[in-house]
Amino acid sequence: MLGGGQLARMLALEGIPLGHRFTVLEPAPDPPAGAVSEVVAAAYDDAEGLARMAAASDVITCEFENVPARSAAYLAARLPALPPPAALEVAQDRLAEKEMFRELGIPTAPFGRIDSPADIEDALAVSGLPAVFKTRRLGYDGKGQVVVRSRGDAARAREKLAGPLIAESFVAFERELSVLAVAGRDGSRVFYPLTENHHAHGILRVSYAPAPGLDPELQAEGERIAGLLLGRLNYCGVLAIELFEAGGRLLANEMAPRVHNSGHWTLDGANASQFENHIRAVTDLPLARPQVSGPAAMVNIIGELPDPRAVAGVPGAHLHLYGKAARPGRKLGHVNLTGRDAAEVMDGVARVWELLPGAALPPRPTGW
Amino acid sequence: MLGGGQLARMLALEGIPLGHRFTVLEPAPDPPAGAVSEVVAAAYDDAEGLARMAAASDVITCEFENVPARSAAYLAARLPALPPPAALEVAQDRLAEKEMFRELGIPTAPFGRIDSPADIEDALAVSGLPAVFKTRRLGYDGKGQVVVRSRGDAARAREKLAGPLIAESFVAFERELSVLAVAGRDGSRVFYPLTENHHAHGILRVSYAPAPGLDPELQAEGERIAGLLLGRLNYCGVLAIELFEAGGRLLANEMAPRVHNSGHWTLDGANASQFENHIRAVTDLPLARPQVSGPAAMVNIIGELPDPRAVAGVPGAHLHLYGKAARPGRKLGHVNLTGRDAAEVMDGVARVWELLPGAALPPRPTGW
Repeated sequence: MLGGGQLARMLALEGIPLGHRFTVLEPAPDPPAGAVSEVVAAAYDDAEGLARMAAASDVITCEFENVPARSAAYLAARLPALPPPAALEVAQDRLAEKEMFRELGIPTAPFGRIDSPADIEDALAVSGLPAVFKTRRLGYDGKGQVVVRSRGDAARAREKLAGPLIAESFVAFERELSVLAVAGRDGSRVFYPLTENHHAHGILRVSYAPAPGLDPELQAEGERIAGLLLGRLNYCGVLAIELFEAGGRLLANEMAPRVHNSGHWTLDGANASQFENHIRAVTDLPLARPQVSGPAAMVNIIGELPDPRAVAGVPGAHLHLYGKAARPGRKLGHVNLTGRDAAEVMDGVARVWELLPGAALPPRPTGW
Repeated sequence: MLGGGQLARMLALEGIPLGHRFTVLEPAPDPPAGAVSEVVAAAYDDAEGLARMAAASDVITCEFENVPARSAAYLAARLPALPPPAALEVAQDRLAEKEMFRELGIPTAPFGRIDSPADIEDALAVSGLPAVFKTRRLGYDGKGQVVVRSRGDAARAREKLAGPLIAESFVAFERELSVLAVAGRDGSRVFYPLTENHHAHGILRVSYAPAPGLDPELQAEGERIAGLLLGRLNYCGVLAIELFEAGGRLLANEMAPRVHNSGHWTLDGANASQFENHIRAVTDLPLARPQVSGPAAMVNIIGELPDPRAVAGVPGAHLHLYGKAARPGRKLGHVNLTGRDAAEVMDGVARVWELLPGAALPPRPTGW
């Protein structure tokens, strides 16, 4: 695997029982996946490191999309590299991604490109105001984004954000959702129920799944959108798509060609997790059809670790720590909550939330 | 952990998300737990190996009961060693174990001791015929046991089995059950539903859980028996007790002071597995109260590996491989089956069974 963070750690934890062993390429010291895999400590474009990965592996996958194109090409020329490098490449560029959505007829917020200050007016003519300016590359967790409410904001945003931008209409959405799709090497596809996501400062805080009050037509539309992308990208593995629900419609916001934070609930809320299904997909095992027996929630642990005894004492709480040192804004773990009904799950969320630093009340789901 | 086999592997897989890291003491090369832990490659009574374990660990636990008494004492003098060494010691000796059952008023088959040939008549006077002669030490998976139907059999069994023996009445049981109990360091206790177990040639083949048609009074009696043992042994961790159901009563057959093959279904059939609860117990986290949402089964993979693609393609099948080389009679993995009802689970068992070498039909549960 390229990357040795918490996603790689959870992929290995779920893949080892399937009979696999893992090696990760990771430049940072003492990575989370080190507890469950061999570590090749090198940069993602280090020739020797890549050669060691190719020699150690039967198949290559990744826990993040920003794999250098030359590294992906080197590996893909030598062994199966899944998802395909072209899918990583398009996901590295917000504009290319949005243009692909448009070509496939997938609804999005109106958007325009800003390569130079001269493009601002044209872009605003498409997006209108308010808009969101985003860097085309390397944005994550809300970084590289600025809300633009006026032409003055627009000029300032252009200066603050480096490189080419994309300007998108600011969507007054009812809620944020995501769909997790999995494609096998044999072309089979499975989908998890849509998840409702609550962010703060651009970082996911809480997910509720299945999305409360989920309309089967909305689920079908989410699967249709995901299916178009799986087909276009000749995809294999887990693909996550972040969506806005607005006026009963779904708008595609962005995609992640990997397992996704909004799917962590599947470790305890589904018969087979996104991590297991990703490993099944890239190692050519049949996919597990997701089954969900009740409501679930996921609460991220960010910046500071709560007392693990207190968390583990909450009924229905499942603790998942990443083995990382505490640091402000850093994702250190998550807690999944399961229960017989929504009230039990919400009670668990509230009790876990009290153990975390920060806001007094957790974000409420829209429908429970 | 003392021992680096599949039980240690599954303990580590479930304990790592709780934030722990593992080191195992294991003399055999390339142990199953090596994929998820540091390995100290040394004998269980190797002074340097034990010193390294004490230095590396905050708490010691084990995946088997036959820990040398001096090793257990060395470690317990230096750090918490759980379950307590005295519990391991009594479980190493079938006679001591049965005498403890008797002292606690726990029903067992009648039994007698055979230290020398002169004891045979006295033992048979207690056990009657048919009887089962068992070695007092180091028996497992049906090894070290002989069924005795006559006085001639008895003399031959005495010669065949080395060392002191125990003679037990042959119980014409209706079925074999087990109870898994967990005691926390704070004295809290939880119990899993009784499991129905099917053996062949002394090796567990299939478990069904909760035991089909389980009477709440039988569950309560199983928990009462387990509770007596937890209390007597000042226990911490998972304790498994194998039981016979005969004429509506439970007879205690033997105990294992560790996670147990008959509890492997809890990885997929319960909200928290026996492995997670054992690690919670010995690391002083609150126990998770077992909740079961439907029927489950476990099929052992013994001697030969089936095609993992075929197994993973069975609906409701959860594959757990141990990373061991195939060898006749060796436990290489297991498959858990879950489903919405008993029919789905049985269908899964039948389909997995067809993929395994050997008998044409799986053992049927008594009640489904």
